[in-house]
Amino acid sequence: MTLALTMGDPSGIGPEITAAAWHALRTTGPAFVALADPVLLGAHAPVRVVAHPGAAGFADAIPVLPIDLATRAIPGTPNPANAAAIIASIEQAVRLAQSGAASGVVTNPISKAVLKSAGFPHPGHTEFLAALTGTAGHEIMMLVCPELRVVPVTIHVSLRDALDLLTTEKIVEAARTAHAALRRDFAIENPRVAIAGLNPHAGEQGHMGTEEQLLIAPAIAALRTQNIDVTGPWPPDTMFTAAARKKYDVAICHYHDQALIPLKTLDMWGGVNVTLGLPIVRTSPDHGTAFDIAGAGQANPASLIAALRLADEIARNRAR
Amino acid sequence: MTLALTMGDPSGIGPEITAAAWHALRTTGPAFVALADPVLLGAHAPVRVVAHPGAAGFADAIPVLPIDLATRAIPGTPNPANAAAIIASIEQAVRLAQSGAASGVVTNPISKAVLKSAGFPHPGHTEFLAALTGTAGHEIMMLVCPELRVVPVTIHVSLRDALDLLTTEKIVEAARTAHAALRRDFAIENPRVAIAGLNPHAGEQGHMGTEEQLLIAPAIAALRTQNIDVTGPWPPDTMFTAAARKKYDVAICHYHDQALIPLKTLDMWGGVNVTLGLPIVRTSPDHGTAFDIAGAGQANPASLIAALRLADEIARNRAR
Repeated sequence: MTLALTMGDPSGIGPEITAAAWHALRTTGPAFVALADPVLLGAHAPVRVVAHPGAAGFADAIPVLPIDLATRAIPGTPNPANAAAIIASIEQAVRLAQSGAASGVVTNPISKAVLKSAGFPHPGHTEFLAALTGTAGHEIMMLVCPELRVVPVTIHVSLRDALDLLTTEKIVEAARTAHAALRRDFAIENPRVAIAGLNPHAGEQGHMGTEEQLLIAPAIAALRTQNIDVTGPWPPDTMFTAAARKKYDVAICHYHDQALIPLKTLDMWGGVNVTLGLPIVRTSPDHGTAFDIAGAGQANPASLIAALRLADEIARNRAR
Repeated sequence: MTLALTMGDPSGIGPEITAAAWHALRTTGPAFVALADPVLLGAHAPVRVVAHPGAAGFADAIPVLPIDLATRAIPGTPNPANAAAIIASIEQAVRLAQSGAASGVVTNPISKAVLKSAGFPHPGHTEFLAALTGTAGHEIMMLVCPELRVVPVTIHVSLRDALDLLTTEKIVEAARTAHAALRRDFAIENPRVAIAGLNPHAGEQGHMGTEEQLLIAPAIAALRTQNIDVTGPWPPDTMFTAAARKKYDVAICHYHDQALIPLKTLDMWGGVNVTLGLPIVRTSPDHGTAFDIAGAGQANPASLIAALRLADEIARNRAR
């Protein structure tokens, strides 16, 4: 099976990490087809324009389903004129996955600011993919590195808004979705779910905040009635140590940085973003377009390579 | 010179980690005098009751300035009856440091709940030490491990209260105090101070929160006028990676877990708590009383050993 890899912002590091990922995976797989500009990608690696996804000849060249750019991409200088091509690449990748022609979608980084200036109404990839697949509102982000899996219940909102938006229902839905994904996509028979506290020391019995008692404990109780192996609320600062990480398969976190700080501190370049709650398989590297180093040959492809490998693993687990 | 080491809660892991620290340091130093119950400590290591602090004979036994317990300490079962002894140990250690008889104070863990039930009005060690030394309100907590130094601007309050309490003035004071301490106590000539953002991605130009623009940027501007090498606001999730940590000497963080999650994720047992803004040198291990394992011989003394070494290093730097 072949994965569909989107172009991402063509002025970012997408083209060079795509080429580097192909070099790393060309003989071992997983194979992918790039939905990209063949000229731009061809500057970094051998490419072959194809009409349909397929793994044949992957060892010799990157198969490319061509997407025309409106204007030449200049590394480090994003151009909203190319927004339509960036979006078309994502849409086509999703269609390939929906039809079964691709086993999953892996997305290169996009710039929200660039797409927004071209009228793109979604906050990011994740929400756009949910809209394209008819599952808007059910998308859940999981970040995965070899040492840790985390799911933030609230994501791209201010910390103050995160506190206002957090509810027992959202915690329960994030934990249930993560639990189901660990079973189906990660082949973990009885996933252990750890729920973080929100406040220092998980509130110390209400001395430093009451969300643990008012929001989080009821979520844990509700999850227990659904036969989910769940623990918490854990003191946030000690739940990501090596010893603590052995006690769970996923940590449910309440705000962006509670999830992202430990993950990126442990593994800046190996982290993968997995979207749960979609009918299709979707992963991405967990870094951005890196316009500041685009074209300089310094970009690290590790996260994209890990994203391709994980998408393939999830697709295989789903096909069992 | 000799450090003054308090007893901490005698039902916690204090006695056993004190003995283990003495075993680790007895020939190399730094030497310390324990302000503790000699019978309790004597169950774990050889002790010698002394009338004054002094390093002589440290290799043979732990020098102990005796503090009588009101009742026998049972490991794992704290007793408020011993609160007066716990507090007396801290008060005497501070007096020794103030008089110059000790080079600094290192504190074993206490239980806030136990002391509170005995009428102790302070939220913890740090505030008590500030009150004892006439510097209440100026105490700043710094956490140090070999990989990272962090200063939380707000500490033991709920996350919601932390957002309400954060001000430009507090950020400036924390950064100034940390900068001065790095020069005087850590012998770093031109300390580089990194200020964290508060919101995901440091707010992305106001798209996800405005504290970066309203509170943090003005603090950075004010610090620059004081010739402090300051950078920020940094996106919180990527500022603790190995590459990012090379770019600063201390990270100023806005809430407890923003500082503590990366530190404990990197180094659960080597972290040291240093109180800045006091006239005396004070460090402590950055873990608690661990009543659940007290007396079981499982306690890890690494943080206490690191705290003793760091207090000695700070005292030597101040004496230069």
